[in-house]
Amino acid sequence: MEYPSLLIERAVEAISKFPGIGKKTALRLVLHMLKQPENFTSDLSLALRDLRENIKYCTICHIIADTEDCTCRNAYRDTSAICVVEDTPDVLAIRSTGQYNGLFHVLGGRISPVDGIGPENVNIGSLINRVKSDDQVKEIILALSTTMEGDTTSFYITRLLKEENVKVTTIARGIPVGSELEFADEVTLGRSIATRTIFNQD
Amino acid sequence: MEYPSLLIERAVEAISKFPGIGKKTALRLVLHMLKQPENFTSDLSLALRDLRENIKYCTICHIIADTEDCTCRNAYRDTSAICVVEDTPDVLAIRSTGQYNGLFHVLGGRISPVDGIGPENVNIGSLINRVKSDDQVKEIILALSTTMEGDTTSFYITRLLKEENVKVTTIARGIPVGSELEFADEVTLGRSIATRTIFNQD
Repeated sequence: MEYPSLLIERAVEAISKFPGIGKKTALRLVLHMLKQPENFTSDLSLALRDLRENIKYCTICHIIADTEDCTCRNAYRDTSAICVVEDTPDVLAIRSTGQYNGLFHVLGGRISPVDGIGPENVNIGSLINRVKSDDQVKEIILALSTTMEGDTTSFYITRLLKEENVKVTTIARGIPVGSELEFADEVTLGRSIATRTIFNQD
Repeated sequence: MEYPSLLIERAVEAISKFPGIGKKTALRLVLHMLKQPENFTSDLSLALRDLRENIKYCTICHIIADTEDCTCRNAYRDTSAICVVEDTPDVLAIRSTGQYNGLFHVLGGRISPVDGIGPENVNIGSLINRVKSDDQVKEIILALSTTMEGDTTSFYITRLLKEENVKVTTIARGIPVGSELEFADEVTLGRSIATRTIFNQD
């Protein structure tokens, strides 16, 4: 596309580097921005720069935080379980269910030999240290995606924790709540039968 | 949603002010940004601020440009026709068809009494002056949207130009190329019959 201005072209190029945003969408966003008051742009620009420069990762659980000392050491948390997830959005998703009040550990990715990501590139070492150094931890809950890479990562962590005195569990895989059996894929349905639980009449 | 960091929250708020971008998408974009090198963010932030502060609108055709003197005075353009559009993306769309090499005039909106936008809020006055002061202009091509507001704007401009020595035309409304008649709506099909043209055997 031929842009009417170099400034527009530069802004469109920068925005369209985000995943899922093409040049047409980027142009629409840029033109929207130009119709807004000037502080719309300055606020946005400042918020992004501030975020990038000042963001911290908790040194214990690796969650994104404003300080290196995040709420994971909050006194109200259940400190007997650590839920292992791939990324920060997973933490938010699990927190918002209201079903889990324990600790988290963000791996920051998953083992994927194809992409050149080995166990040393994700926060597995610090998870093992955490388990070893904290007697309160009794359970590790693996909440990784059900893909080849997710499963590989789960197996790897489980093997490393074999010698430790912790129970390793994984979140249930099965038919989503509210969906029909006939539309479920065979693997999921098979897993849901193999890992069936006692029917709870509450 | 409960964010793990105030910095994240501020960035998400700023990004989700764009049309079509919700908080979930904004969070995804922000987390993507954090995984990129630092210059990804600084480039983006600079490009947006630069654009907002230094962008100009051509004083003649009102197209967004780097200077107040855009390419509309380019010697290679056909200066006998002015195509009137609502916004800059329309100019890009028409240019990219390769079917039009004439001048443009960007209204910057359309008359919409419901939204409090009167003829004085769009660049209609300057269009009339342009026609009055330039003898070379022989045709005004209205390329506005086929909505109530677009049609109102077209009627208004046509009435103002009645006394001037220019032909006022509008782009054809009809069945899109490649689509089936049976799926066309009645109004469009009716218009395409009423404004039928000589079949061209080229």
